[in-house]
Amino acid sequence: MAEYTFFFNPMSRAQIARWALHEAAVDYEPVFASFEDRPAALLEANPLGKLPTIVHHRDGRDHVVTEAAAICHYLAEMSAPELLPQPHEKADYFRWLFYAAGPLEQAVTARMFGWELPPEREMSAGFGNYERALDAIEGWLASHDYVCGDRFTMADVYVGSAIDWGLQFGSIPQREVFEAYAARCRTRPAYQEGKAIDGRLMAEMQGGDA
Amino acid sequence: MAEYTFFFNPMSRAQIARWALHEAAVDYEPVFASFEDRPAALLEANPLGKLPTIVHHRDGRDHVVTEAAAICHYLAEMSAPELLPQPHEKADYFRWLFYAAGPLEQAVTARMFGWELPPEREMSAGFGNYERALDAIEGWLASHDYVCGDRFTMADVYVGSAIDWGLQFGSIPQREVFEAYAARCRTRPAYQEGKAIDGRLMAEMQGGDA
Repeated sequence: MAEYTFFFNPMSRAQIARWALHEAAVDYEPVFASFEDRPAALLEANPLGKLPTIVHHRDGRDHVVTEAAAICHYLAEMSAPELLPQPHEKADYFRWLFYAAGPLEQAVTARMFGWELPPEREMSAGFGNYERALDAIEGWLASHDYVCGDRFTMADVYVGSAIDWGLQFGSIPQREVFEAYAARCRTRPAYQEGKAIDGRLMAEMQGGDA
Repeated sequence: MAEYTFFFNPMSRAQIARWALHEAAVDYEPVFASFEDRPAALLEANPLGKLPTIVHHRDGRDHVVTEAAAICHYLAEMSAPELLPQPHEKADYFRWLFYAAGPLEQAVTARMFGWELPPEREMSAGFGNYERALDAIEGWLASHDYVCGDRFTMADVYVGSAIDWGLQFGSIPQREVFEAYAARCRTRPAYQEGKAIDGRLMAEMQGGDA
């Protein structure tokens, strides 16, 4: 049995977890989950049936991890310590990992569905407003090549995916700082491996021969 | 100088960070931030001016941490290792910490502002829908006293605050499992210390004599 079971659909946030799995260079068994008919093993591990979900088979127990950001960080903790932050990098690492998983995700989702906060209530929701939420991360990446400065860490798999996806789907504006950061992230061999696999699977699902 | 600077307002999520600061038993300097006129030092550390924000003065550098969940975890990493998860607890710890900071927060915010996802788009937003998002964490806490099972960890400061606040403000339904978990969390001396301080400050702000 592989060390990890990976429930995925190539057309989902599971792409983030695949990139992380390849960064950690772990042995994993991919299990395809269709949106219409989720595998029983997935629903047992995660009643919400969300993708990605991973199960770490370790010491005779199954350890379930859900939430793409948690999966990235967990993989670094258990299998890729070199991608964890050093003590002096921890503030930046956790700050921006949670920022991307919380306020940034919330701001982008709200924009996508046309949900607007009345200005006087902006402080009631953690993300404030879309423009300011984007300005904050842009300000950071304008002066830092990666989340922790000059070194790629697992936080960049998650933050980089958020920016990369957002640029691709138009939910994040094509600002120069975002383009440059995404370009740096796309040079990672693990990113390219993951994209190649998911791209092939999507082509097969769509009946193409690519 | 204290080891940490803590920008707060008692009527904000800064209460979560104060609980965490007391769990970690660190030396901190509280700096009050009014919503109308945020201190320059806060805006320098965090241009969004969000509360809580902490600055860790360490090795001659200032380390800024924002996002309540990141602050909780950072404090455990740097100053309270006994509240970090053991290896066998890491999956649960990170899964639910990110779940509470992401989908749960998003579901509760959406409900608060009356934002509804069309059913066919529920998978496009990470939180699905409010009922299912709450059922998932209820299911976990029905069979686990704390996030990691039988032991309180720093994840419970964040998840516990989310439940405790939600029950108090009516944004989370008063289900038995939530009430019982919140009651367990409220027995923590650090929770009570933080509440006492913030309660006194709120009474002063409101001109009361309590």
